[in-house]
Amino acid sequence: MILLKNVFLNSNICDILIDGNKIAKIADKLNTSADEIIDCRDKAILPSFCNTHTHASMMFLRGIGEDKNLFDWLNQDIFPREAKLKPEHFYPLSRYAILEMIKTGTTCFTDMYFEVPETIRAVEEMGLRAIIPYPGMDFFDEEEAEKRIQRAIKYLDKPSPNSRIKKALYCHAIYTCSQKLVEGFSDLAQKYDVYLQIHVSEAQKEVDDCLQKYGCRPVELLYKWGIMGPKTLFAHAVHLNDEEIELVKKTGTVLAHCPTSNLKLGSGQMNLQRYLDAGVKLTLGTDGVSSNNSLSMISEMKFAALSAKNKAASVLAGKVDDIFQIATQNGFNAFGIKAGEIKVGYLADFILVDMNNQFLLPNNNLKSNMIYAADSSCITDVFCDGKAVMKNRIIPHEAEIIADFKHVCSDLL
Amino acid sequence: MILLKNVFLNSNICDILIDGNKIAKIADKLNTSADEIIDCRDKAILPSFCNTHTHASMMFLRGIGEDKNLFDWLNQDIFPREAKLKPEHFYPLSRYAILEMIKTGTTCFTDMYFEVPETIRAVEEMGLRAIIPYPGMDFFDEEEAEKRIQRAIKYLDKPSPNSRIKKALYCHAIYTCSQKLVEGFSDLAQKYDVYLQIHVSEAQKEVDDCLQKYGCRPVELLYKWGIMGPKTLFAHAVHLNDEEIELVKKTGTVLAHCPTSNLKLGSGQMNLQRYLDAGVKLTLGTDGVSSNNSLSMISEMKFAALSAKNKAASVLAGKVDDIFQIATQNGFNAFGIKAGEIKVGYLADFILVDMNNQFLLPNNNLKSNMIYAADSSCITDVFCDGKAVMKNRIIPHEAEIIADFKHVCSDLL
Repeated sequence: MILLKNVFLNSNICDILIDGNKIAKIADKLNTSADEIIDCRDKAILPSFCNTHTHASMMFLRGIGEDKNLFDWLNQDIFPREAKLKPEHFYPLSRYAILEMIKTGTTCFTDMYFEVPETIRAVEEMGLRAIIPYPGMDFFDEEEAEKRIQRAIKYLDKPSPNSRIKKALYCHAIYTCSQKLVEGFSDLAQKYDVYLQIHVSEAQKEVDDCLQKYGCRPVELLYKWGIMGPKTLFAHAVHLNDEEIELVKKTGTVLAHCPTSNLKLGSGQMNLQRYLDAGVKLTLGTDGVSSNNSLSMISEMKFAALSAKNKAASVLAGKVDDIFQIATQNGFNAFGIKAGEIKVGYLADFILVDMNNQFLLPNNNLKSNMIYAADSSCITDVFCDGKAVMKNRIIPHEAEIIADFKHVCSDLL
Repeated sequence: MILLKNVFLNSNICDILIDGNKIAKIADKLNTSADEIIDCRDKAILPSFCNTHTHASMMFLRGIGEDKNLFDWLNQDIFPREAKLKPEHFYPLSRYAILEMIKTGTTCFTDMYFEVPETIRAVEEMGLRAIIPYPGMDFFDEEEAEKRIQRAIKYLDKPSPNSRIKKALYCHAIYTCSQKLVEGFSDLAQKYDVYLQIHVSEAQKEVDDCLQKYGCRPVELLYKWGIMGPKTLFAHAVHLNDEEIELVKKTGTVLAHCPTSNLKLGSGQMNLQRYLDAGVKLTLGTDGVSSNNSLSMISEMKFAALSAKNKAASVLAGKVDDIFQIATQNGFNAFGIKAGEIKVGYLADFILVDMNNQFLLPNNNLKSNMIYAADSSCITDVFCDGKAVMKNRIIPHEAEIIADFKHVCSDLL
C-alpha cells in the first residue's frame, strides 16, 4: 500500500491510498499505515495519458528527411533505413519510446509496428500498459494474406504475459490490405475478443482512390466489410463526411485523432468539434516520431485544441475539459481499462505535477495549464498500475536505455 | 573572457571564446587563457530566440476564462482583473515573464503593455535584451492623443539605462487609435529613430471594419498614413491580400507572426509560406499568455511549422531552416541587433542544449529536433550579451521571483 499525503486533487488538498493496482481511498486526512508514504505537498495528481496511436520503434527516424514530398521521403529516407531493421533492434527502440512516454506522462499506448514480441518485452519490463497488435499488410497478395492470418492466430493463441498488455490486431490501411486480409483479421478479432486497428481516411487521396476502386468512401467500405464496432479503432479519420461520422457513431467505433501528424504531413485538419458534437468516441494519439516528432501527449493536447479552434474558426471549439478528456479517460475507456480518472476503485495510473513549476502558475485552471503551458519539466512522478515508473524524475535504467538506443541508431543511420 | 570547450556547433566539435559581449573566436582547439572555462562536452550551442511580440506582464492571466467568446472573456475575465493592476505589480510580473523566457531560451523580446519603467527595471536586472515601447491608445479622443504624445516625448527623452534595452513606441491598433495618435507616434519614432509597433489585421473583422470606416484595408491605410518602413513592426498580420504583402515588402516593414494566438482565438491562419515566398521580413512572437498560454518560442516554432504546412496543404511549406531563422536571426536583425547566429563578431546571445537529452536524440537534424521534439528540459544554459542568465539550469533569484509573483497573483485574482 502506498499513501499519498497532502496531494492537490481538483481544488482540494487530500490524502490518497493506493492498494495494489487501485485507488482505494480518497479523504481529507488518512491515518492508515502503508508500506510507503509519499509527501505530495505542492504536487497535484492528475490522470496519466493514453496515447491511442503511435509507432514506438520508429524513434530512430526522428528528424530524418524533413520537408520532403511523401514519395521522396519514403523512398530516399524511410524505406532504406527501415530495411536495415533486425528483430534485435526493436527492444531497445521500444524502450526508448517508452522512456519518452513516461517522461511526458503517458502510461498506456497503442502500437502499430513489427516484431511485436520485442515491444511486449519492453512494455512488460518498464511497467507500462499497451495494446500491441499483430501487423497485417499484404499488398493484395492472397498468399501473404493467408500467411498473415495464420501467424496472427499463433500470436493470439499465446497468452499475454500480464494484465497490463492486451494483444490485438492491425490492418495497415485499405490501400495496402486486401478485403480478404481485413475480413480475416476482423473475424479473428471477434473470435479472440481483441481490438482491431486500421489507418482510415488520413489523406484526401485515400478517399478519392477508394471511390474510384470500390465506388464508395473508406468508412462506408469498412462498414460493408463488417469490421466496425466498439473494439475497432480508426486512426486519423480526418476526411469523414456526415454519413461516415454517423456510421462511426452508430457502430461505437473508436477514433484516434492525430492532429500534429495530420498537420505536419499536410494531410488536412480534422473538424474535432463536429466529431465531438456528433458524440463519437474520440481519443488522442501522437502517431510515430517520423511525423510528429515527439511522443508527448502534452504537446499533442495543445495542437488538438488549437487545430479544433482554427478549423471551426471559434474559440468555443476544442474546450479544455474536452481536450483533456480525449487525452486521458476516453483513451482508457476505449480499451476497457478503468483508468483516466482519479476516483476510488479506478486503476492507479496517474502523474504528479509540481505546482511550483513556472509553467503551472498561476493555478487559475490546472487542465488549461497542462494543455497550453506545461512541458515534461512539470511532471515529477508517473504511476502505472499502482507502481512508480518514474519517481522524482528518475526512471530506472535511463542511462542504459539511452546508450542502447544510440548504439542501435549507429547501426541504422 | 569565457572559453567554451568542446561544444557542438553545426556538425563539428569546437572551442568558442567570448570576449566581453561578443563571440571573439571559433576554432577546433583554442588554448587561450580565460576568466572562466566551461566544459561543454555533449552540449550544442545554438542562437537564442527573439520573441517579437508579447505582453510580458499579463502572466497573471494565464488560463483565465478559457473557451469563451471574445466579448465575454474581455468583460467578465480580463478587464476586471486588469483594472486592479497597480504600478508596483509590473516589476514582479515582468520578472516572472522573463524567467519563463530564459527557461525556454529567449534572450530578446518586444513588449507591448503599460508601466514601462517597471518592465525596463526587470529586464535590466535580469540581463536580457528588450525593445520596450511606450503605449499609445486614445479611443479616438483628441485630448488623450495629445497627452500620450507629450508623455511619449518625455519617455524617449530619458536615455535607456543600457545598450540591451531599446526604447520604442506602440499604437495598439487602428480600431483603438486615432489617425492623429498614429501619425504623431510615427513622427516621434522617426525623430528619435526608434521602433514603432502596432497590431495589424489580426482578425477578419478588423479588415471589414476598416473597409467600412476608411474605405481601404488596414495595411493600405497605414501606408497612406506614412507609418510603414523598416523600423515599423506589424504584429499578427494574418489577413493581408497580395497588394498588402507587396506594400509590406516594398517598405521593408517587419511582421511578427503569432501562430498560436491566432489559432487559439480563432482569428485565422497566416499563409506563412506565401509571405516567405514574397520575401517579406518575418519574425516570430508568442503573444501574451492570455492567448497562448506560454512564452516558449520552442513550442511557437512547432506551431509555426505545422500551421504553415496545414495552410499550404504541403509538407514543403514551413521548412525547418526557415522556421528556425524567423525565430532567431530574423528577430534580432529586425531590431538591428547583431545576434541570432553563432559567428565571430556576433553578440554572445546563445543557448547550450544537452545532446544526451531524450528529446534531442537521435541527432539526425538538430534544428528539427529543437522545433518539433524539444522542450525547456533540453536547455541547460542561456547567455545574453556575453553573460550567463541561466547556468546549469539555475537562474539567480528564481525562488524569490516565483514567490513575489504568487503574492501579486493573490492580490489580482
